[in-house]
Amino acid sequence: MSRGQETGRPDDPRGATPGVIYGVGVGPGDPGLLTVRAVDVLREAGAVLAPAPRRGGDSLALSIARPHLPEGCDVHTAHFPMTEDPAVLRSAWEEAAATLLRLAAADRSAAFITLGDAMLYSTWSYLLAALRRLSPGADVRTVPGVTAMAACAAAVGRPLAEGREPLLVWPDEPPEDAGALLQWAPNVVFMKSGRHLDALADVAERAGADVVAVRRASQAGESVTVDLRAWAGDREYFTTVLMHRAAGAPPAAPSEEARS
Amino acid sequence: MSRGQETGRPDDPRGATPGVIYGVGVGPGDPGLLTVRAVDVLREAGAVLAPAPRRGGDSLALSIARPHLPEGCDVHTAHFPMTEDPAVLRSAWEEAAATLLRLAAADRSAAFITLGDAMLYSTWSYLLAALRRLSPGADVRTVPGVTAMAACAAAVGRPLAEGREPLLVWPDEPPEDAGALLQWAPNVVFMKSGRHLDALADVAERAGADVVAVRRASQAGESVTVDLRAWAGDREYFTTVLMHRAAGAPPAAPSEEARS
Repeated sequence: MSRGQETGRPDDPRGATPGVIYGVGVGPGDPGLLTVRAVDVLREAGAVLAPAPRRGGDSLALSIARPHLPEGCDVHTAHFPMTEDPAVLRSAWEEAAATLLRLAAADRSAAFITLGDAMLYSTWSYLLAALRRLSPGADVRTVPGVTAMAACAAAVGRPLAEGREPLLVWPDEPPEDAGALLQWAPNVVFMKSGRHLDALADVAERAGADVVAVRRASQAGESVTVDLRAWAGDREYFTTVLMHRAAGAPPAAPSEEARS
Repeated sequence: MSRGQETGRPDDPRGATPGVIYGVGVGPGDPGLLTVRAVDVLREAGAVLAPAPRRGGDSLALSIARPHLPEGCDVHTAHFPMTEDPAVLRSAWEEAAATLLRLAAADRSAAFITLGDAMLYSTWSYLLAALRRLSPGADVRTVPGVTAMAACAAAVGRPLAEGREPLLVWPDEPPEDAGALLQWAPNVVFMKSGRHLDALADVAERAGADVVAVRRASQAGESVTVDLRAWAGDREYFTTVLMHRAAGAPPAAPSEEARS
């Protein structure tokens, strides 16, 4: 495993050759779904930084990576507040980026670990931008990971998309006319949809679409249902809904209201 | 590793307890991007079936998995013709499914290996359907993998999508008004787009979108360019284009022509 000795950080005033900073996707939950490369990086890393939703709270990414960390690994957590205030968020990202620069400074590598893939709806992309602002010469690398939606499809036993069919991934509250999304892409993944199960059940019924919800894919307590309303009261955060246009259904004309 | 002794195949007349059949995503190219679980499954599998585009030809999935296969692993290839004739395809899928059932029959597991994730634009989804038709009681499991687009984003150092932004994955020829796709999803991945680089460069210019092309992500010869036209003559199959609506650009009204 290269530890980046070949690339100095020209803007680093401290003299020592700093190590590589990695963003590592640890996958959807099963520690077996880390990649071999992620395991190698974590085994070699002198320090690991894990996101925690509450200050001092548990980190799911850390619990997934834990079986792969060597004894004596220097483990830190970074708190990212659940807010949309850009100033607060930017400050949290810069603080975490500064921590990574500090941890990697002593000729060792440091890894930020993140759920799923590191480049899809991950805090890592904000840290990457902050690292570029704070230390443009830093040697920063991304290790891709398995997404939650891939684990959901494996749990359900149905593909996310096949052949020439587009796939749409919708991480936000579903639009009012969510069924119209199926006219653009016959396969839609609604992420973090625990609060929208009743609405998505309505959408699927109106559109005649196949729908299935998955909770905690690949984690302990993984479950799957086609009866979205049965879960509507639970509001579990890690709920993904996979919707597919019914086989043979013709695409209707796109509606202008759909993307509201 | 469970080898499925707990689950018989009730419709299997042969008496012996058949092994598990796995569909394993081997990731985008770097053998280090297999998951730990994929490596375990391949290490335990008595037999491996790999797809080959030409009869007797090389299998990229096999070359990726090869470093992880134990000595003496019983390796087979299945030929899937490059055709859209449904009868020819169905016959190839059923033949491969029958091969997997035969390979797993002798109380050992068998694994079909496939590029990227096993449930996203993979032959595995067709084999899964064929296995259900041929042997509804078979113990069939899917091991998810890292997608090519995740490796592309890691290579480029830019996220596929962030925050509340939808992501659209487009595996087909781009529509004439492909720029309108950006009104639905500010991030669009055009897969297998080596033949469409000039057209996608035009789209990005008209839409004022950021665009980057990646070849052979995570494989030997990985390369990245923002000058799509420079690659337009090469028509390399494993070319992915990542397009992003320019930061701050307002979403225009969706066009009815866009999904042509």
